[in-house]
Amino acid sequence: MQTELTVTQAERLILRTVPVWGGERAPLPSAAGRVLRENIRAERDLPPYNRATMDGIALRWKSWQSGRRAFRLEGAQSAGQAAATLLDSHAAWRIATGAPIPNGADAVVPVEHVRDAGAGVQIDSGYRPKRGQFIHKKGSDRRAGALLLKAGQRIGGVEMALLSANGVANPLVARTPRIALVSTGDELVGLGALPRPWQIRSSNGPAMAALLSRHGYAGIRALHAPDDPGVLADRIDYALSQSDALILSGGVSKGAKDYVPGVLAELGVAPVLHRVRQRPGFPLWFGMHGEIPVFGLPGNPVSSLVCLRRYVIPALDKAQGAGQARPETAVLDETVMFKPKLAWLLPVRLSADKTGRLTAQPRPTNTSGDFASLAQTDGFAQLPANRSRFPAGCTARVFRWNG
Amino acid sequence: MQTELTVTQAERLILRTVPVWGGERAPLPSAAGRVLRENIRAERDLPPYNRATMDGIALRWKSWQSGRRAFRLEGAQSAGQAAATLLDSHAAWRIATGAPIPNGADAVVPVEHVRDAGAGVQIDSGYRPKRGQFIHKKGSDRRAGALLLKAGQRIGGVEMALLSANGVANPLVARTPRIALVSTGDELVGLGALPRPWQIRSSNGPAMAALLSRHGYAGIRALHAPDDPGVLADRIDYALSQSDALILSGGVSKGAKDYVPGVLAELGVAPVLHRVRQRPGFPLWFGMHGEIPVFGLPGNPVSSLVCLRRYVIPALDKAQGAGQARPETAVLDETVMFKPKLAWLLPVRLSADKTGRLTAQPRPTNTSGDFASLAQTDGFAQLPANRSRFPAGCTARVFRWNG
Repeated sequence: MQTELTVTQAERLILRTVPVWGGERAPLPSAAGRVLRENIRAERDLPPYNRATMDGIALRWKSWQSGRRAFRLEGAQSAGQAAATLLDSHAAWRIATGAPIPNGADAVVPVEHVRDAGAGVQIDSGYRPKRGQFIHKKGSDRRAGALLLKAGQRIGGVEMALLSANGVANPLVARTPRIALVSTGDELVGLGALPRPWQIRSSNGPAMAALLSRHGYAGIRALHAPDDPGVLADRIDYALSQSDALILSGGVSKGAKDYVPGVLAELGVAPVLHRVRQRPGFPLWFGMHGEIPVFGLPGNPVSSLVCLRRYVIPALDKAQGAGQARPETAVLDETVMFKPKLAWLLPVRLSADKTGRLTAQPRPTNTSGDFASLAQTDGFAQLPANRSRFPAGCTARVFRWNG
Repeated sequence: MQTELTVTQAERLILRTVPVWGGERAPLPSAAGRVLRENIRAERDLPPYNRATMDGIALRWKSWQSGRRAFRLEGAQSAGQAAATLLDSHAAWRIATGAPIPNGADAVVPVEHVRDAGAGVQIDSGYRPKRGQFIHKKGSDRRAGALLLKAGQRIGGVEMALLSANGVANPLVARTPRIALVSTGDELVGLGALPRPWQIRSSNGPAMAALLSRHGYAGIRALHAPDDPGVLADRIDYALSQSDALILSGGVSKGAKDYVPGVLAELGVAPVLHRVRQRPGFPLWFGMHGEIPVFGLPGNPVSSLVCLRRYVIPALDKAQGAGQARPETAVLDETVMFKPKLAWLLPVRLSADKTGRLTAQPRPTNTSGDFASLAQTDGFAQLPANRSRFPAGCTARVFRWNG
C-alpha cells in the first residue's frame, strides 16, 4: 500500500488501478447521457442526396447563363419525395428546403429573387445565380463509412443526433454502475429527527448522490453505519455484494473509532493507497475488492465533496470507458496564503472576463467542516504543495463541481 | 409580432415574455438537480458545538502553560456524545475528530505529539500548543438564521449538503415542466425503417431530448408530424393540452410546406417573434399559448440544436425561476470569414491553455444540415452581425452544449 502520495501520484495510481467495466447494447433513447463504447461510422453518404438549402426554384444553370430569365414550371419538389427529373432543360421546379434536387438541375434560385409570371416564374434581372448554389451535395459532409463518433464520448445532443441519423438503434454503451454510498459516524442524525446539540445532520450521502447525478451517475444506494466495527462490517459486506463501486465517508482518519480501514481489510478489500498530501482530504483511502473500487473519503463535508470530485468521478469515468476530461485552468484574482506543506484544494468561484480568461475568486473555508462557505462556489483550484504564498495573477488547475 | 430581430433583442424578448412557473415542495432526495425556489437559512449555529478538528487530547491550555506536560485522562470524548466536562482542570480527555470539546477544555493536542504514560499521557517537550487550537468554534462558520442558499440555485452536491445539514426535508423547488417536442417533415423516417435514398432519418427529437436532459429537463414527450396542416394541427393541439412548453422543429421557413406558423396561429398561439438575424437559425419562431411558451425551431439539425441551446434552454431556466447563467467568453484561435450580414453562431471546440485562457477552435459546418461536423465540438461562439472577418485572437461569447 502506498501512503502520503502527492495529488498527481494518487490520481495516477487510482486511474491505473480501476478496471474498465463492460458495455451493453441499449435502445437509443435510453442511451442519452451514457458513455458510447463503440466507434460510429456514417451509414451512408451525408447528406444522402443532393439537398436544397433554400426554398425557391431548381433549374439548369446553363439555361440561365444562356440568357433565359422566364422558366416554365414542371412541378414542385418536396422533401420526402424521390428526386424528380427536369424533362425540359429550360424549365424549372419549385423546391423546398431539404428536398432532393431534381435530376438535371444544378442550382437553386431563392424564392426572394423569383416572381410568378403566367404559368411559370421570372428571375429578377439583376440577380446572378452561381452554378451549384444552395445545393448541399450528396456526400459533401461525410462519405459512407467515415468515422463520426469515437468510443468514449458521452452521449449528449450532438452525439444523439448522429446516432439517430445513422440508424444506430442499439449502440454499445457503458453499463450503468450500481454505486453504494456508506456514511459513517455516531454523531449523525437523519432528516426526520431533531438533532441534539452534539449531533449533526447527515448530509454526505445526499450531497454525494446529488454530485454524482450531475456527472451522469444516478440510482445511487445510500446507507448509514454507526461507529461500530461489527455493524459497519455487515453494512459494507452487504454493499459490496450489491455494487460495482463503493464510496464510504468518514472513519478513515487516525482516531480510535476510525474503523473503516480495518474493517475493509477484514472483508478482503486490498488497500492501494492511504493518505494524500493534500488539504482537505488528507486521510483519503482507496482499495479494490476484486473489480470493485472502494473509496474511503474523509467524513467532513468539504473533504468528501472535494475527494469525490477530484478522484472518484474521474475513476468512475475511466471505469465507464469515458475519455479523460480536458484540464481547465484559471487565474487567481486574489493572493492567498497556505502554511501546511500540502497541496491545497481551495474552493473558488469562477467567472470569465471579457478577454476569454477564467478567473478564480478564492473562497477558503474555515476548516474542512465549514461547508456553508461552499454555497457560492463553482469548484476548487488545485494549488501545489510546498508553497505558502499564491499571488493574485498566478494560474492553477481548476475542477468544477458540475463540470 | 417582431421580425428580424438581432440575437440579443430576440433573447431579451423571449426572456421577458416567458412567465415564471410555480413551485412545489419535494422530498429532499428527489430535489437533486432541481431549481431551489426559496432562500435557505441556517437552522442553528454552524458548527452547532465546539468541534475537535484533530484526533488527540483535549485539555485546558493554562494547565500546559503553567508547565504541566503529564495529564491524567478522565475519559474519551467521541463524536455523537454530549460534551463531557473536564472535572480536574489539570487532567485531559482523549478526543476524536468531530467530537464536542469537553466543557472546560480549550485546546486539542494532536495524537502525533502525545505519548501514553502510565494512566495518562505525556505531551512532547518540544511541542507548543496554542490556546483554542484545533477547535472549530460553535457558530464560527455561520450563525443560526444566516442566509445559506438563495432561491434560483440549481441543487447540486453543495446545495444538497446544506439542505440536508439544515433539516430542509421538503424544499420549495420548481415544478418539473412537461415538455413536448414535435418534429415535422415528410422526409423523415424512424429508427426501425430503412431510409429510401431521398429520405433522412429523424434525429431532432432524440437529439433535442438528450440536450435538454443534460440541462436538467427530463421526461420529454417526442412526437412526429407529417407536412399536412390537418394532422399537424391535431398533434400540436394535443401537445398543447399536455405540456408546459412546446418545441417544434421544422416547418417555419418560407417554403410552400412550412405550415407551422399558420397552424399555430389557427390554434390561438400568439406570435411574438419570427426570424432572427443569425445563421444558423434565421427562421426561428416564438409565441405564447396562455402560459405555454411555443418555440418553432428550424428543422436542420444544426439550427435546431443551436436555437435550443441559445434560446430555449435559457427560457426554460427562467420559467423555472433559475438565476441567469454567467456569460462565458473565449479567444478564437483561427481567423474565420463570414459573408452574410447576420450574426454567426459558429460551432467551436473549446480548450483552456495554461494561462487560464479559453480558446475556441472554429469548426464551421458546410451548411446548417452538416451536423457531422458538430461531433467534436463543445458548443458555439456568437460572432456579431455586419462583420465579415473575425481574426485569430478576437474574443467572443461562447455557449457550451452542456454548460
